[in-house]
Amino acid sequence: MTDPALRRDDYLGGRLSLWQPAKGYRAGIDPVLLASACPAKPGQSVLELGCGVGTAALCLATRVPDLVLVGVERQPEMASLARRNAAECGAHLEIVEADLTQLPPELRQRSFDHVIANPPYFQRDRSHSSPHGAREAAMGEETALADWVAVAARRLAPKGWLTMIHRPERLGDILCCLAGLGSVQIQPLLPREGRDANLILLRARKGGKAPLRLHAPVILHQGRMHEFDGEDYRPEISRLLRDGAPFPGLGAAI
Amino acid sequence: MTDPALRRDDYLGGRLSLWQPAKGYRAGIDPVLLASACPAKPGQSVLELGCGVGTAALCLATRVPDLVLVGVERQPEMASLARRNAAECGAHLEIVEADLTQLPPELRQRSFDHVIANPPYFQRDRSHSSPHGAREAAMGEETALADWVAVAARRLAPKGWLTMIHRPERLGDILCCLAGLGSVQIQPLLPREGRDANLILLRARKGGKAPLRLHAPVILHQGRMHEFDGEDYRPEISRLLRDGAPFPGLGAAI
Repeated sequence: MTDPALRRDDYLGGRLSLWQPAKGYRAGIDPVLLASACPAKPGQSVLELGCGVGTAALCLATRVPDLVLVGVERQPEMASLARRNAAECGAHLEIVEADLTQLPPELRQRSFDHVIANPPYFQRDRSHSSPHGAREAAMGEETALADWVAVAARRLAPKGWLTMIHRPERLGDILCCLAGLGSVQIQPLLPREGRDANLILLRARKGGKAPLRLHAPVILHQGRMHEFDGEDYRPEISRLLRDGAPFPGLGAAI
Repeated sequence: MTDPALRRDDYLGGRLSLWQPAKGYRAGIDPVLLASACPAKPGQSVLELGCGVGTAALCLATRVPDLVLVGVERQPEMASLARRNAAECGAHLEIVEADLTQLPPELRQRSFDHVIANPPYFQRDRSHSSPHGAREAAMGEETALADWVAVAARRLAPKGWLTMIHRPERLGDILCCLAGLGSVQIQPLLPREGRDANLILLRARKGGKAPLRLHAPVILHQGRMHEFDGEDYRPEISRLLRDGAPFPGLGAAI
C-alpha cells in the first residue's frame, strides 16, 4: 500500500528505512550527525525533543543497543510516522505527541541520561535579508531556542548530557541559555576545508564544571570545491552516514 | 643605562623593541596576534584596553600608518613602560593611566573606530582543579570580563569593531555580554592540527546585525607534535610574527 503523500528514504546504508512526507521538510544528514555524536551507552535512557519522523532516535538505536528511547513530537502526522518507522524497524521508541513546552505530567516525572535535539533552523535567506537579523529570526521560531535548552536541562538526570546540532549563527544564543549545564563541548563542522563552519554539534552536561572546549573542526566534504556530481563526503563522514559509525570528533564525553 | 628589573624583547623581526619587567607577566605572541587581527585602516582611531607595555598597540602602529592610538593601563609601572616604548619607537600612542571601569571624563567623551583587548587569562591549572570551575575563575578576575566588553562597547563609534583575544573557556562568557555588539566573528586558533583550540580571536561590531560566523581554524604550529627544539610556527604565522603581516584568517570585517 503506497501513500503518494509519503516517501521512504534509506539511512545508514539501508540499515534504516524511514517514511516521511513527500513534500515539505525532509531530514537530511543533520539528525544522522546528531545521533552519531550522542555518547549514549547500552542500557541508558535517551529523550529526543522534536523527533520528527524519528530519524535521529532510530539512527541512535541502530548504533547503540538496549536504549530506553523516548521522542517528543508536536505534529500529529510526524508523530504517527515516527511510531510507524519505529515499529517497522523493530525499535523500542516511545513517541509522546506534545509541545515540548507542555510535556505531559508522566514525562515531566522522568529523567534521562541523554537528551538530543535538532531544533528547526530559521530560514537563512530571510535572516540575511532582514535588517533585524537574528532577533527577528528568533522571534519567528515557533518554540524559542531557550525553551528547547531549558526543557532539555530539566529532563536530564544529574551528570546527563545534552547533545544538539544547530547552525553557528545561534551559538551565542545557545551558550547564553545553558543555565545548569556546563562542561560544554563545541564541535564545528565545516562543509569543506577553509570554509566557515555551517553546522555545530554541541554537548553540555547537567551540573558539569569543566571548562568549555572548542574542538578542531570536522570537515564534511573532500576538496576545496564541489568538483563532480554525486557524493564527495570524506571517508570518516561516509562511514558515519553509511555504516552508522560514531562521530569522528568531539572526543570522550567527560 | 640598564635597569636589571627590565628586559628588552624584540617583536616583528626586530622592527619593534619593547621594554618590559624582567619578572612577572611578559607578553607572548597573543598581543601580536591581536594586533594582526584588528581591521584598522590608516587614519582611524584605536583604543586598547589594558595595554600593558603597549605591545599590541605598537605592533598595530607598525603595520598600519597614521592611526590615532590610545592605550589604557591601570598599573603605573606598565603605563610608564608603555610611554617609554612608544617614545623610543616614535609611535603616537597616548597612554591613559586608569582602571578601565573608571575612565577619566575626557576619555569617556571620545569614541573610537576600533577597540582591542587582550584581557588577562585566569590561571588554567587553578580553574581545572577547582570544583567551581569557570565561576570561581571569573570571580578571581580583578576586572570582570563583562566590564571589559561593556567598556569597549561604550567607547566604540557606531559600526566600530571590537577585536579581542582570549581563551575558548571564556567563549560563552564573552558571547553572553555582547549587548549592543553584533556581526560576531569567532576565529579559533589551534596549537596544532587536530587539537582543541587554545585561543580565540573574536570580532564584534557595534550595532552589527550580521549572523555570527565561526571561521575555519588557523593552526599555529607545524606537525602533529613538537618534534624539534626551537620555533616550528607555520609559515603564515611566522610572517605575522616576524614581518607584521595581517592575520591570515577571519576574512573581511563586514
